[in-house]
Amino acid sequence: MEPLIVINFKTYEQATGENALNLARICDAAAKETGVNIIIAPQHADIYRIASEVSIPVFAQHFDNIKYGSNTGHILPESLKAAGAVGSLLNHSENRINLASIEACVKKLESLGMASIVCTNNVATTMAAAALDPDYVAIEPPELIGSGISVSQAQPDIITGSVKVVKKISKEVEVLCGAGVSTADDVKSAMELGAEGVLLASGVVCAKDQDKALRDLINF
Amino acid sequence: MEPLIVINFKTYEQATGENALNLARICDAAAKETGVNIIIAPQHADIYRIASEVSIPVFAQHFDNIKYGSNTGHILPESLKAAGAVGSLLNHSENRINLASIEACVKKLESLGMASIVCTNNVATTMAAAALDPDYVAIEPPELIGSGISVSQAQPDIITGSVKVVKKISKEVEVLCGAGVSTADDVKSAMELGAEGVLLASGVVCAKDQDKALRDLINF
Amino acid sequence: MEPLIVINFKTYEQATGENALNLARICDAAAKETGVNIIIAPQHADIYRIASEVSIPVFAQHFDNIKYGSNTGHILPESLKAAGAVGSLLNHSENRINLASIEACVKKLESLGMASIVCTNNVATTMAAAALDPDYVAIEPPELIGSGISVSQAQPDIITGSVKVVKKISKEVEVLCGAGVSTADDVKSAMELGAEGVLLASGVVCAKDQDKALRDLINF
Amino acid sequence: MEPLIVINFKTYEQATGENALNLARICDAAAKETGVNIIIAPQHADIYRIASEVSIPVFAQHFDNIKYGSNTGHILPESLKAAGAVGSLLNHSENRINLASIEACVKKLESLGMASIVCTNNVATTMAAAALDPDYVAIEPPELIGSGISVSQAQPDIITGSVKVVKKISKEVEVLCGAGVSTADDVKSAMELGAEGVLLASGVVCAKDQDKALRDLINF
Repeated sequence: MEPLIVINFKTYEQATGENALNLARICDAAAKETGVNIIIAPQHADIYRIASEVSIPVFAQHFDNIKYGSNTGHILPESLKAAGAVGSLLNHSENRINLASIEACVKKLESLGMASIVCTNNVATTMAAAALDPDYVAIEPPELIGSGISVSQAQPDIITGSVKVVKKISKEVEVLCGAGVSTADDVKSAMELGAEGVLLASGVVCAKDQDKALRDLINF
Repeated sequence: MEPLIVINFKTYEQATGENALNLARICDAAAKETGVNIIIAPQHADIYRIASEVSIPVFAQHFDNIKYGSNTGHILPESLKAAGAVGSLLNHSENRINLASIEACVKKLESLGMASIVCTNNVATTMAAAALDPDYVAIEPPELIGSGISVSQAQPDIITGSVKVVKKISKEVEVLCGAGVSTADDVKSAMELGAEGVLLASGVVCAKDQDKALRDLINF
Repeated sequence: MEPLIVINFKTYEQATGENALNLARICDAAAKETGVNIIIAPQHADIYRIASEVSIPVFAQHFDNIKYGSNTGHILPESLKAAGAVGSLLNHSENRINLASIEACVKKLESLGMASIVCTNNVATTMAAAALDPDYVAIEPPELIGSGISVSQAQPDIITGSVKVVKKISKEVEVLCGAGVSTADDVKSAMELGAEGVLLASGVVCAKDQDKALRDLINF
Repeated sequence: MEPLIVINFKTYEQATGENALNLARICDAAAKETGVNIIIAPQHADIYRIASEVSIPVFAQHFDNIKYGSNTGHILPESLKAAGAVGSLLNHSENRINLASIEACVKKLESLGMASIVCTNNVATTMAAAALDPDYVAIEPPELIGSGISVSQAQPDIITGSVKVVKKISKEVEVLCGAGVSTADDVKSAMELGAEGVLLASGVVCAKDQDKALRDLINF
């Protein structure tokens, strides 16, 4: 089975504006050459430019639970779709939203034909998120985010526990392994524990050589 | 003196994606033909596409008080500048931010060479906003937003009072008149009361004929 | 089986300060005379005074996911326990909190020996909340809150659906029926649909005669 | 002139429940014996109990910009007054509120006959806050909060600058000096720079001997 690699650009300088476009091209080229499934999640203002230039899927990092109308400065999911996004992260640890909003946003993405990745922080919240029927749940223990220590190696029980409770709720929700992922071994161990892929950011975005870091990561 | 016309696209369907681009072109053409100063504020995901196609100034509707780094889903001002924005609304009634953030965001825009418009709701908050030294303060009594009743006509004291307290603080901060603006008369009365321009949304965006509504508005 | 009646005082004038104490005494007297289980949830500032005077359980309406320390103005669960609260509502529709906070707050209440009632808005979020293992889930379709139309009568499927998904997750989580409850018939139908009780506010708090409204409600 | 000493209990364990009551009594006794003006700001759930037992003024740490009605879990100013509070902190750095809310809350306190202390973080936001006409502005540079390094000694310009801009706006708004205050010397230097008093927390609350720390502080 092929792992899915989701790269969150966050608001890193190395992934803003021109830099975001460059990184997107690196990911696009690597995906084409290796056949690995790579999804990128750049900032809202970079989505249009990137989606116009690459063929790998572009996701948003977040949007608001709003409808067309008077919501100055908020992120309308329809604006993301119009810009070329085909999915979105939701409830990232740096941008938590409430339970009712997660549910409404998952449904909204589905109605727009877009995919959803709901981020969670432990086994219990992963089970809760699975009950909302997203496409993916990405489990990221907060203490490992940005640590360089992979959850799949440091806390394998969280992955196996998450896979177990998710599958109890629904066979169709897939589990991604986030937090601390940076090497091909991290990806391999995540897959062996039952995850369908990984969600990462700094491991690639902040690497001195982004292309090399990505190639190393997907050389599993 | 030439009034400044700022058009907030909000998240209206008539101003999202392709529709946003169309409206931006209407505004651009009207500005070129008439020489009137028009600023447009589309959604974040539409800024790049619009700024690439029009020559009038494009502003953001909002951004977050953050720096480069780990802020998944938040709006980094540098990403807006990279996409072509040359200024931003701040503290719109639909997206209030705290006092410390307004101050930090005004300073950040200045450091990026971008312009700031701080929205306020009455004379006292207008005076407070002026103390933060933005380029513009836009006074919008909440009860008139989207009402079709112009503050310049319904509550002229709010405009004259705002102009007075702002000038007491700083000669360089300019006052815009928001809420309910939809006709050339509204603009004229705002100017007569001492404002330097208007901030509006539905009056143009939601008009059946956006071009006609805009032409009527700037035919002062 | 005895229904549980939870009365949320919200911030109604009829349930603030002296009025809150009066209403608490009405509830206390009714509970003693009838043997019905009544829980009251007054405002934070009223908890100490009320808990000192009545013997029915006093719950908080909300608290923050914080620990002892520097959190000026936030609600520390330990402060509520010290004031006499023995449980808390969480995630009320008027005060939504994020998924990670619901999970942490449920656990915190358990560690303090206090009971948890997590409010939800539909079947999917009820299932999600049940995965977090609270004592109670209170399902309140937002459109019926304060409507005087009981969910148990207007949308019985939501109650039966909620009970079904909750029991699939855990036999120990109990379901309360909220939104629009105001009569003994509402309570009866909620119980028949599988709920263990009701959560209500305006039906009693805003009644001209609070005592009569409560007596009518619990005369099932 | 007599300095005003405001002690913020935050959510410290040493200032919660019984501990809050003990500390309030220490402050009350010291104020009575020395004649120094001491205001205490305990947690919401502790206000009633404390205000019933001490004669020094009790303030809240925060409240929400709401009216009587449906605001489950939010803090109604009327509930604080009913519990015995005679004023409130607003916009503390740990609980920032938006500009429109600061203005509305200052007015609300005034209408309830209660006093307002608006916290700010630099000279510009202090000037802005003064424009809202509160009773006090408390300037607390964020980097010094909890540091044990007094703003009055480390950054005297911030105090003198704040006093100057505040007096430009209004002669009636008074300036408190916050952040890092812990000794009588800190109080003295704050007064010499033009402040009317100090706002502090950990210096007294977290001291091994709270009574001694307070006595030392007010022995100016």
